[in-house]
Formats: sequence, C-alpha cells, structure tokens
Amino acid sequence: MNLTKKLALAAALTALPSLGLAEEGPVAGVNPSTDTVFILNSLLFLVGGFLVFFMAAGFAMLEAGLVRSKNVAMQLTKNMALFGLAAIFYYLIGYNLMYPLGTWSVEGILSGVWGPGVLEAVGVTADAADDYSYASTGSDFFFQLMFCAATASIVSGTLAERIKLWPFLIFTIILTAIIYPFTASWTWGGGFVGEAGFSDFAGSTIVHSVGGWAALTGAIILGPRIGKYKDGKTIPMPGSNLTLATLGTFILWLGWFGFNGGSQLAMGSVGDVADVSRIFSNTNTAAAGGAIAALILTQILYKKPDLTMVLNGALAGLVSITAEPLTPTLGAATLIGMVGGVIVVFAVPMLDKLKIDDVVGAIPVHLIAGIWGTIAVVFTNGDATIGAQLYGIIVIGLATVVMSAVVWFILKIVMGLRVDEETEINGLDMAELGMEAYPEFSKG
Amino acid sequence: MNLTKKLALAAALTALPSLGLAEEGPVAGVNPSTDTVFILNSLLFLVGGFLVFFMAAGFAMLEAGLVRSKNVAMQLTKNMALFGLAAIFYYLIGYNLMYPLGTWSVEGILSGVWGPGVLEAVGVTADAADDYSYASTGSDFFFQLMFCAATASIVSGTLAERIKLWPFLIFTIILTAIIYPFTASWTWGGGFVGEAGFSDFAGSTIVHSVGGWAALTGAIILGPRIGKYKDGKTIPMPGSNLTLATLGTFILWLGWFGFNGGSQLAMGSVGDVADVSRIFSNTNTAAAGGAIAALILTQILYKKPDLTMVLNGALAGLVSITAEPLTPTLGAATLIGMVGGVIVVFAVPMLDKLKIDDVVGAIPVHLIAGIWGTIAVVFTNGDATIGAQLYGIIVIGLATVVMSAVVWFILKIVMGLRVDEETEINGLDMAELGMEAYPEFSKG
Amino acid sequence: MNLTKKLALAAALTALPSLGLAEEGPVAGVNPSTDTVFILNSLLFLVGGFLVFFMAAGFAMLEAGLVRSKNVAMQLTKNMALFGLAAIFYYLIGYNLMYPLGTWSVEGILSGVWGPGVLEAVGVTADAADDYSYASTGSDFFFQLMFCAATASIVSGTLAERIKLWPFLIFTIILTAIIYPFTASWTWGGGFVGEAGFSDFAGSTIVHSVGGWAALTGAIILGPRIGKYKDGKTIPMPGSNLTLATLGTFILWLGWFGFNGGSQLAMGSVGDVADVSRIFSNTNTAAAGGAIAALILTQILYKKPDLTMVLNGALAGLVSITAEPLTPTLGAATLIGMVGGVIVVFAVPMLDKLKIDDVVGAIPVHLIAGIWGTIAVVFTNGDATIGAQLYGIIVIGLATVVMSAVVWFILKIVMGLRVDEETEINGLDMAELGMEAYPEFSKG
Repeated sequence: MNLTKKLALAAALTALPSLGLAEEGPVAGVNPSTDTVFILNSLLFLVGGFLVFFMAAGFAMLEAGLVRSKNVAMQLTKNMALFGLAAIFYYLIGYNLMYPLGTWSVEGILSGVWGPGVLEAVGVTADAADDYSYASTGSDFFFQLMFCAATASIVSGTLAERIKLWPFLIFTIILTAIIYPFTASWTWGGGFVGEAGFSDFAGSTIVHSVGGWAALTGAIILGPRIGKYKDGKTIPMPGSNLTLATLGTFILWLGWFGFNGGSQLAMGSVGDVADVSRIFSNTNTAAAGGAIAALILTQILYKKPDLTMVLNGALAGLVSITAEPLTPTLGAATLIGMVGGVIVVFAVPMLDKLKIDDVVGAIPVHLIAGIWGTIAVVFTNGDATIGAQLYGIIVIGLATVVMSAVVWFILKIVMGLRVDEETEINGLDMAELGMEAYPEFSKG
Repeated sequence: MNLTKKLALAAALTALPSLGLAEEGPVAGVNPSTDTVFILNSLLFLVGGFLVFFMAAGFAMLEAGLVRSKNVAMQLTKNMALFGLAAIFYYLIGYNLMYPLGTWSVEGILSGVWGPGVLEAVGVTADAADDYSYASTGSDFFFQLMFCAATASIVSGTLAERIKLWPFLIFTIILTAIIYPFTASWTWGGGFVGEAGFSDFAGSTIVHSVGGWAALTGAIILGPRIGKYKDGKTIPMPGSNLTLATLGTFILWLGWFGFNGGSQLAMGSVGDVADVSRIFSNTNTAAAGGAIAALILTQILYKKPDLTMVLNGALAGLVSITAEPLTPTLGAATLIGMVGGVIVVFAVPMLDKLKIDDVVGAIPVHLIAGIWGTIAVVFTNGDATIGAQLYGIIVIGLATVVMSAVVWFILKIVMGLRVDEETEINGLDMAELGMEAYPEFSKG
Repeated sequence: MNLTKKLALAAALTALPSLGLAEEGPVAGVNPSTDTVFILNSLLFLVGGFLVFFMAAGFAMLEAGLVRSKNVAMQLTKNMALFGLAAIFYYLIGYNLMYPLGTWSVEGILSGVWGPGVLEAVGVTADAADDYSYASTGSDFFFQLMFCAATASIVSGTLAERIKLWPFLIFTIILTAIIYPFTASWTWGGGFVGEAGFSDFAGSTIVHSVGGWAALTGAIILGPRIGKYKDGKTIPMPGSNLTLATLGTFILWLGWFGFNGGSQLAMGSVGDVADVSRIFSNTNTAAAGGAIAALILTQILYKKPDLTMVLNGALAGLVSITAEPLTPTLGAATLIGMVGGVIVVFAVPMLDKLKIDDVVGAIPVHLIAGIWGTIAVVFTNGDATIGAQLYGIIVIGLATVVMSAVVWFILKIVMGLRVDEETEINGLDMAELGMEAYPEFSKG
C-alpha cells in the first residue's frame, strides 16, 4: 500500500471533530482508557516475552553450531535443561527476590517476600488489577523470567566441551535463583545501584555482563580444553555447523527486539509506542553495525572475512546497544554497535593469549561489549555520569565474580567440574549421554 | 528500565482524574470502546495464529531430526504437503463443519453449512462486523485452521519411515476436512460433549489426543519398521539430527504460547489480558517441568540423561497443560507438566513392548499426556467432574479410532499403505523422491 | 475455549448501553481514541517488521540448504552481510529517497531529502506525533527497511557458488541505497507509476520482481557455474541440506504474514483489523495452493514429487498473492497461489534451457510469479486495469534491469565478478573464507 493512503489517513485523523463521536473512525482528543493502557502494556510484555523466550533456541543453535560434533548432544541437553531450571527456580525464588514487594532493603528481602511468584487471580477485574501494577503480573513475570534464563544461556557456551552436566546445572540453579535476581534487584528492584544513578536500560551489565562474569569465572576455574593451547600457540577447534550458528544468531537478533523493546515496559501511550519503535530501529542498526564492522575488520586484518566473527560482531552490537537503545540517533546506535563488533575481533585473540578458553566467544560478546555499552550511555544520555556507570559495572561485576567463584569452587570440591580426559577427547556425547547428535555422519 | 519507573507509572495511573480528559495520559474509569475490544480480540487471534502456524515448522524439524537420514526428505515433503492440504481442506469443508452457523445439530450441520469458509467483506464497518462476531472472521478462521493443521502434524511423525506418501496425504485430507472438525465441534462447536460438561480449554483431547489416536490406529494397522523388534528386543534407530530435533522442540514451545494463549479467545479487557498472561506463564512452566522431570528420571533410571526424552518431556508438559492452562497456579502447572514428562519416560518403552512403533514418540506425548492433562482439569477446576472428563476422552477417542481405522483400512485395500521392503531398507528418499536431504554426506 | 463463550461474549457486547460507562466491559458506540489508533498502527508495523526481519533468516537457511556444502559458509556470510549493509544504507540514503518529505518530484528528491532517516524525538507527545504521521516514524522506518533488505536477499541465492563476496556486497549497497528505494518511490512514494493506476499492495513487482530482475541481470552477466550445462544437458547440482531449505521456507512463510499483513499499514479500526485478518488468511492459503500445485504437478510430470519444487511452489504462491492479498476470496487466493506453483515447475527447466543458472530458483519464484501476481490483480480488483499493471511491471522492470546491468558491468570491469576456476571447483568457503560450514563431515 502506498504513501497516498497513508497521507489521506493522517489527514482524516487530523480532520476529526474534537468531541469524537463520529460514527466511524477514531475519537480525537480522547486518550486511551486505563483499561486499554493496561492491556497494551501487558501485550508488550507478552510479545516481548515470547521473543526473548525464543532466544533460548538461538543460544542453543549458536552453541550447538560452534562446538565440535562429538559434544553437540550434550550442549543441546544443557541448553534445554538450563532453561527448564531457570523457569522453575526463578519462579520458586528469583522473581520475588528481584522485585521485593515492599521497599528494597535487607529486611524487605528477608521478610517473607523470598518465596514463589504468585500471579493475579483468574479473570481479575480492572479494580483489582490496579492494586497489582499497571500491567498484568503474569505478563511481567513471563517477561522477567526470560531475562533470567538468557543470563544462564550465556554461561553454557563458554564452558562447553569440558564441563560436567550436573555441576553446570547446579550452578544454573544458583545463578537463576539467587545471583542474577539479587544483583539485578540493585538496579531494577529499586536498590542502591539504581539509586546511585546507574543507568542500564535493558541490561548490558545487569544481564549480559553478569552472564559474562559468571562464564569468565567458570572458564578460569575450569581451565581450557585439552589441546587448545600448545607450545604458546592457539589451536583452532572450528565449530561443527556454521549454518546452525548463523540461524542461532538470527534468532537472537529477532529475540532482541523483545529484549530491548519490551524493556520500555509500557506501550499504552503515543510516547511509549514511539519509544518502542525507536528502540526496535536502534537495536537493529546496532546489530548491523557490529556485523559489518567485524566483516570489514577481519577482511583487513586477516585478508579473509571470518563468518564466526561476523556472527559474534552482530551479537556484540546487540549487547552494546542494550544499555541504552532508546536515546541514541540511528547514526549513534550504528556506531555504538560497530565499536561492539570491533571489540569482538580484538578480544577473541586476546582471551586466547590469556589462555582463557571461551568456546563460543561469549565473554567478548556479552561481558566486554556489555561493559562498552554501559559506558556508552554517557555519550547519549545527559544525566548519565561515567562515575555512576563505572560504579554499577564494578559493583555488579565484583559481586557476580565473588558469588560465582564461591559456587564454582564448592562444586569443584564436592563433585568435580570437569569430565575426565578420555571423555573429553572422545566427546561428551557418547560418554555422558550415550548418544550422538549426528549418529549417521562420519567424523573428521 | 527499572521498577522505579514502573511504580511511578502505576501511581500516575491511579492519580488520574476520573473524568479522564487530562491532556496527556490515559483516561481513567473509561473502559475500552467496542471497536478497541474487537481489534484486540482479532489481534490475539492473528498473533496466536502465526505462532501456531510456526508449529508446522517445529513438527517438521522435530520429525526430520528424529528419522534416519535416508528418510528425511520424505518426512519434510510430508510435513509441507500436510500443512498445505490442511489449509485447503479445512477451508473447503472443515471450518464450517466445525462451527455450524446455526445451532449445533445433525440437521444444522447437513443443511448447507458444510461448505467453504467465507471471510467478512473488505473494509467491513463496525456495524457490519457486529453481525459477525466479537472478532474478525478472518482472524478466527486463521487461528482455528492452525489447530487443525497441528492435529495432522502429529500423525506424520509416528508413521514415518514406512508409510507411502499419497495414502498418508489422503488420510490427512479426511482428518482435516472431517474427522477433526467433526469431533472438535462436539465441544467447541456447541455440541453434546461440551453440553455434558467436558472441559478442554485449548485441546489436550480435542487436538492432541485426536492426532494421537489417529496416529496410534495408523501405527497398529501399518505395523512396525523392518528390524525394529527382533527376538523380543527393541532395536534402537537413533534420529539423524538431534540439533534440528531440539530446534523443533523450541519452535513448538514458542508456538504453544499462541496455542494456549490464543485459546482465551479474547484480549479486550483487563481480565482477559491478565488471563492470557497467566496462560503464557503456566504454559511455559509446564514445559519446563516436563523437560526437567524427564531429565532427572532418565538420569535415575538409565544413569544417563536422554536428550530425546528431555525434548519429548517438554512437549508432554505442554500437552498436559493444554486442557487447562488458565486456572492452575504456577506450582500446579509445573507439577502437571512434570507428570507429563514422567509419562513419556515410561510410555515410550511400554509402546515398544507392545510392538507399536512410534518413530518420534508422538503417541506418548500427544495421546497419553493429552489424556493425563484432560483428567488433571479435575484437580484445578471446581466445576469439572471426572465423569465428564472421561466421557469426553472416551467419546472423542472412540470416534477418532473408528473413523481413522475405517479410512486406514480402505486406503490399505485400495492403494496399500506401506512401501515395499526394498524401498524401506534403502530409504524412502531415493526410492520415492529420487533425492536425498543430505546428498553430500556419507551415511553410517 | 468454546463457541459458547464466544457467543455469550458477542451478545454481551451488543447488549451494552450506548453511553459506555458500565463499570466493567467495553464502551459501546465509542470509537478508539486517536492515541489508541496511533498505538495500534505502530504496533502493526513493529510486529509486521520483526516478522519480515526474520525472513532474512529464512533466506539464509533456504540458500544455505540449496547450495553445495563447499559454498555454505560463504552463502551465510553473504546473507548476514547483505542484511547489515541494507540496514545501514537504507538508513543513510534509501529511506528518505523512497519517501521524499515533500511532493514526489525530481526537485523534491534532490533538494535535501536524500539524507539519513531521522526518528521522532524520545517520548514524543501525541500532539507532536500528529505532525509526523498516523503511526510512529520509528515503526514505519523499521518496517520499510525490512522490505528493502528482502529485495537484496533475493539476489544472493541466484548468484551463489560463483560470485565474489565484495562485488556482490557493493551491488547490495547500490540496490538498497538507490535502485530499490528509487523504483519503489514511483508507486509507494507518491510517484508517477502509482499515479498511472498501478496497483501492487505489498510488492509482487516492487519488491520481488525488482529483486528478481537484479538477480536475472546478474546471472546473465556472471554466467552459469562450471559444469552446469554440458553437451546440451543440465547437470543437477543438488543442495546440501534440504532440512534447512525446508526450515527456511517455513520461516519465509511466517515472515510473509508480516510482509503482506503489515502492508495494510493500519490496524486502528474494525475495518483495518478485519482486512489484516483477510490478508493473513489469503496469504496462507496462497502458499498452501502453491505448494500443493507443485507437489501434484511434479508427481504427474516426473512420477515423483520434488521437494525443492514444493518449497519453491509455496514461495511462488506467496509472491503471487503479494500484489493483492486483501480483495481475493479464500478460493481465489488459493487459485492465484496454485498458478504460482505451476509457474515454478515450468520456469525452472525453462531457465536451464536458456542456460541461465539460478542456484536456488529465485527468478521463477520472485520474478516470474511476481509478474503473475501483479497481473492477477486485474481479476480481483475492479479498478485495476491490465494496462496500468503492465505499465508498472515494464517500467519498474526496465529501470531495474538497466541500473543493475550498469552496476554489474562496472563491477566486472573494475574488480571482476567471478571467482577463479580453481576456487569455484574447490568451493568458495576454503578459498575465500578459509573455513568450512561443516568441517567435520566428509564431502561426497
């Protein structure tokens, strides 16, 4: 359909009588009812939520595509299981820990709000719903849960191909029940980091860096895969299926519209829906910027473009814009994303020099680009200060590293983190699961 | 964005003058207009509908991943073709058979309503639309069609690797044109099963068990694959691509938000959108429960977790909650899903003992968990009785089995159901299609 | 949920008092407010936009599945990169070129509107938003960008397995910055082709044929793959992964609901949402018709159904209905789609006879079915004339061919279009990227 219809429609709207009782057509000058606002806000959470849900599939495909075929079935099992556990434990503990019903305080958190999430009654009336919030509790729970699960998904990729299933899953439980909700509540739950002026719209730090810090801590404690670093050289261990890794990246990109757009938390006014629209556009262009920056940079540095860098560049662009997807112009958003793409290209070999073995590149993408994105808020938001941003990055990062390290060490001592050497060399699939992802295809 | 903004917004809404003529901001105390309700209801069907549409891709990936590579192209062909035929024949016959325009009765059904579906006029006015329904006919048709197609998708997995293409497709036509719409009308079309108090919110029995019964009947008549049961032992025939099977499961999980959420059939009031939100949350947690139950149970029983059981556990959790995704608490929904996951782990080997060869596990997932979910309604809904639930399960099941058996037998006599032995051993792809799904990769 | 609830609800709506101050329930006789209309229109663009975005993944999977494994990583790189470049250059140049802010005229286009797209301010008020349009600029930009990117995706499939990366990407930049926006503005930007009465609702010609013409021009200038045509025979070069090609087709089908449905450009009235619903239903049935027509026709012609033809048949059905998805009845839409499916089955071998090597069949699907769909508008729209339709097809086609040919020739002279013979035979992946998509799997 064409612009002519558009302009005619716009003109029709403008020409409407202000009292708005025209038989057909919208009512001018009357704002949406509170019920309509409630419905539209809830709808934003539901649509945003199912898009972020689908990121679980994106992470699973990305990681399954970037590990070697002998570990694919295990990687899929981890991704399915971590999502299931995140859903259950965020419900049992995390949700109310993250959003204490009273004021955010140590007493508030301890005094009974730390319990299972409860939805509003069936067929709640408008009056009763007002008591809850400006959107349905169920939609809010659904949306917030998906963020928690995304945090856990970040960890699984880094530690692939060598960590045992059950210690990983127990870590996932602690992460989704306690670590993420607790640190997230410091900003989004009305806590002291948010009070200090820290600004992180959709979670470059609060979600992505937390996942990244937990992954980094785990990677250091777990150590690199056998044969990854030999005689000062990094041995490439290419992923088994780049088509699925690309699919995973596209799915994550899709899900990010829900991740960032839904974080506007409201769609019931002209200003809110216009803001959500800005966020969609900025999120998209930042991903594009990250992908293209990585494409050009790898062409220049290595004379050949690197597809996995392009994929991670797009993801780094997405993480970079997540701390502030609303205020930047399209041009600024593209640049913020491009810097994310550049970061990935340099950070991947840097980690290898440090002998930190990150199988899928999640640390550069989620942690380092997440820090960059959080700092970049200073350039686009007049009220954000570099001090407050660094404060949030450091406090949340430190807390996550300390809590994660404690959990990883306890798990290491109690049950061991790492599969034995023979299992690692033969692949986790046959040894730990007794099945292969691609049983009919010969291995190289 | 953080809770502070949320709370401020909520406060702003509460503080609004009741007359609602504030220059900016919502109008308090005024409910949505009938037009807005109509739009939002239709939107629920459209969004729910495209999510359920995508389940066709989920079934295709799940089944392509769980058959052996020599039968993958045929399985894909069946899935594409069955969706196309379902779309055409539900339009030609099924839709009006399922929702007779007059009262539900034998006369009503026979008296001319059995004909192609007709959408409302282009650019229909609000007055004219009132004559139709409380949502657009097009959106309702779109949504209902996807349920019909899902029923057919269930059958294709069970009968994979041995059934001929065309008899399967002819069965699909009968199923989507007549069997599903006819049995579904008994509850959803105002018929006698619904009148008897049978409660099946989104179709644990009406959709999933019907697909499962049709599959079971077909599996018995068709017989197991060559070599599946030898000397009293079940020979494992592992799927060729567990990554795609996992992707398919995630896609189905995503689509289920539309399947169950859209079945609220309305989103134009605070109560309805809050209910849809409950449904999304319950659907998700039931899937999580099913996956985790299967994970833990296979670890305990077999000392190794089984990825295909985890996938089918998630799906069984989804089927289990489908009969009543609204009224359970999050905890109850998780438990209902967990029981579904447990059912799968026990039902798969049980079917093998009966020498019923179900290639992808659709009978445990859709039929047995569907029966469980339908019974579970008694625990969460005060007005549901075990008698009415069993009545619905038995009447619909019996009718489906009888009608399916008749069709399968006629097809067997007239054109034969099964490919010849050589074709089955060499794979259906080369023999029946002359192409392979993965022509460049060596087979094991 | 069942019809009973539906009917009860509909009755409740009808029974409401006309003044609409009932405590609970919608307000009868009052139309949606302008703000609500603005929100719902913007929401249509956002949801439509993310669905069309996902088509980028669909194209990537379709093309990766239909090329041989030695070229898969390159095909993925091209698809990721082309989307990134489309996003950046449509923003930098294309958007304002396509929708000149003043009147459409040579002066209008040259006088400064050819510049980066600009979104409305953050938190725009309803009054300010009225100055922009009837929906948020950000949502419109987001939606329109995805159409531009789809055009570029069409080209990459045809030219696969032999074109160099960078000349292809430079062509993509010209296509998305200038060729597509320029020719599209002739109809959708208020230009002379639209003025002449040319009718192309969602872009059978404006999007799909333009992509198809650009691909055809490129295919002729580039020449066929080595060994494709030998001694007057066409040598089959089967795709490496039909599962992913099928997934890509399903994803494109899903995305098309946004493509066609979003092109209604409005969802803020009963008539608009009912129209969007018609479009969803018609789009779906046209795809079904195309798939089934190709299935039956290949069975008849070749005695074996051809999966790739079924996939391309579904896509051709979608392209065919894109010029007018609103006005046809469900029956007419099915037939229009079926003709599209028939076209594909005949056009693919026809192109091969002309020694035009189209790796994925994009020319039959997007160009030829696009022309058919544009002509078919005459059968369903009283006000469409065959003269105006042919005028649009020819003018837009000719312009695209001329501009594309000039760009392809310049690129050929300046940097060469084609990889060298050795690279083509060994595959582009190792030679140009130094990586493989499936490194562990032996090649046939």
